[in-house]
Amino acid sequence: MLIAKVIGTAVSTIKDERLVGRKLMIVRQTDEYGTPHGKPFIAIDTVDAGEGDLVLTCSGSSARQTNQTKDTPVDAVIMSVIDSLNIDGKNVFIKNP
Amino acid sequence: MLIAKVIGTAVSTIKDERLVGRKLMIVRQTDEYGTPHGKPFIAIDTVDAGEGDLVLTCSGSSARQTNQTKDTPVDAVIMSVIDSLNIDGKNVFIKNP
Amino acid sequence: MLIAKVIGTAVSTIKDERLVGRKLMIVRQTDEYGTPHGKPFIAIDTVDAGEGDLVLTCSGSSARQTNQTKDTPVDAVIMSVIDSLNIDGKNVFIKNP
Amino acid sequence: MLIAKVIGTAVSTIKDERLVGRKLMIVRQTDEYGTPHGKPFIAIDTVDAGEGDLVLTCSGSSARQTNQTKDTPVDAVIMSVIDSLNIDGKNVFIKNP
Amino acid sequence: MLIAKVIGTAVSTIKDERLVGRKLMIVRQTDEYGTPHGKPFIAIDTVDAGEGDLVLTCSGSSARQTNQTKDTPVDAVIMSVIDSLNIDGKNVFIKNP
Repeated sequence: MLIAKVIGTAVSTIKDERLVGRKLMIVRQTDEYGTPHGKPFIAIDTVDAGEGDLVLTCSGSSARQTNQTKDTPVDAVIMSVIDSLNIDGKNVFIKNP
Repeated sequence: MLIAKVIGTAVSTIKDERLVGRKLMIVRQTDEYGTPHGKPFIAIDTVDAGEGDLVLTCSGSSARQTNQTKDTPVDAVIMSVIDSLNIDGKNVFIKNP
Repeated sequence: MLIAKVIGTAVSTIKDERLVGRKLMIVRQTDEYGTPHGKPFIAIDTVDAGEGDLVLTCSGSSARQTNQTKDTPVDAVIMSVIDSLNIDGKNVFIKNP
Repeated sequence: MLIAKVIGTAVSTIKDERLVGRKLMIVRQTDEYGTPHGKPFIAIDTVDAGEGDLVLTCSGSSARQTNQTKDTPVDAVIMSVIDSLNIDGKNVFIKNP
Repeated sequence: MLIAKVIGTAVSTIKDERLVGRKLMIVRQTDEYGTPHGKPFIAIDTVDAGEGDLVLTCSGSSARQTNQTKDTPVDAVIMSVIDSLNIDGKNVFIKNP
């Protein structure tokens, strides 16, 4: 899974019918400190993540293993909001309370 | 999913029989503003996207989850036309009306 | 799918039994004009492509969706020979007649 | 599979229910000497790996082939702790006893 | 599939039970002349490949299509030893007899 930051949302009217009602979030992969790098991509939000949240994204066929994405043409899903990241016994990222 | 721009079409006569009747679009990944970068690839169009449209593409086995691509040897599909992209409360991309 | 050029062939005697009789082609991804870039990879030819042909390759589990590659340990297949590529209403590539 | 080093852990309260009880490890791919390079990613630990361990990670649908990750939205799993890496008849990495 | 060179072996005691008895080879992708480039990765050997051999590797779910890797958490497999690579009618690589 990737550590990613939610940076925005996408809106689409013309889409596969299985995507109706799904939330399309714009995310960017981050490093272990929550700093974004790389190109944005779109992931389906299944955990009510908000803009600015650090999340985990899951790709490929595994992205279809949530209740909201079963049998759906999506290849990336947000299935976890990150509370903290810990390296060498220290918190290097803590979600704002 | 990737944000991508439709830049052209491909024509093929000799192909797997399951591809007959499928529209082969040339697309390039874009950033969140719709600016293309990276190498072109080919995706099957399932939503009547046109050249110049910003779309979502879905890759891998998930590309076979549309009615038009079931059990078909394709690994990328266009399954959504993007209306707008929103970052920090502002529209950074709006489809031409 | 990738636009790719067939640049050669590979020969293998010791291989998984499901690969017996399959044609192993050396291909390289190209841009929309047919110019190769990047590293070569091997794809199973299912459409009698020849060296020099521009083709479409399909990767991952989707590469097993042809009659010749079902249940076979292969992750890339040639399933289409490209006749032409069209961008902005112009043919940027036409197969030699 | 990738050779990777476990560098930390991630904590998440809001997550897909199938992730409850799973250990989220922060890992980085390494070279054959165990030196990390590239961006960190998150893998589910199924073999009680510890921070600092060199491990094997498995990605994609194959990450769901362990007892702990079946039908779960995860795309990377730690399923092996590396004892040693051997190149040209020499151990280039040995796990600390 | 990738053209890859076997450069070593990995040893692991603590691992998923389905990996018991499997040979873990360290491989690096090569170009069409057999020259390695890029980072090493680990593939399960199913064809008794030896160090120094040029082989084909298959990734993702397709790596589970051999008899030795069915239902196993592995994402890369060696399923072919390369005898020769031919470009423009010339052998650019021939296996040492």
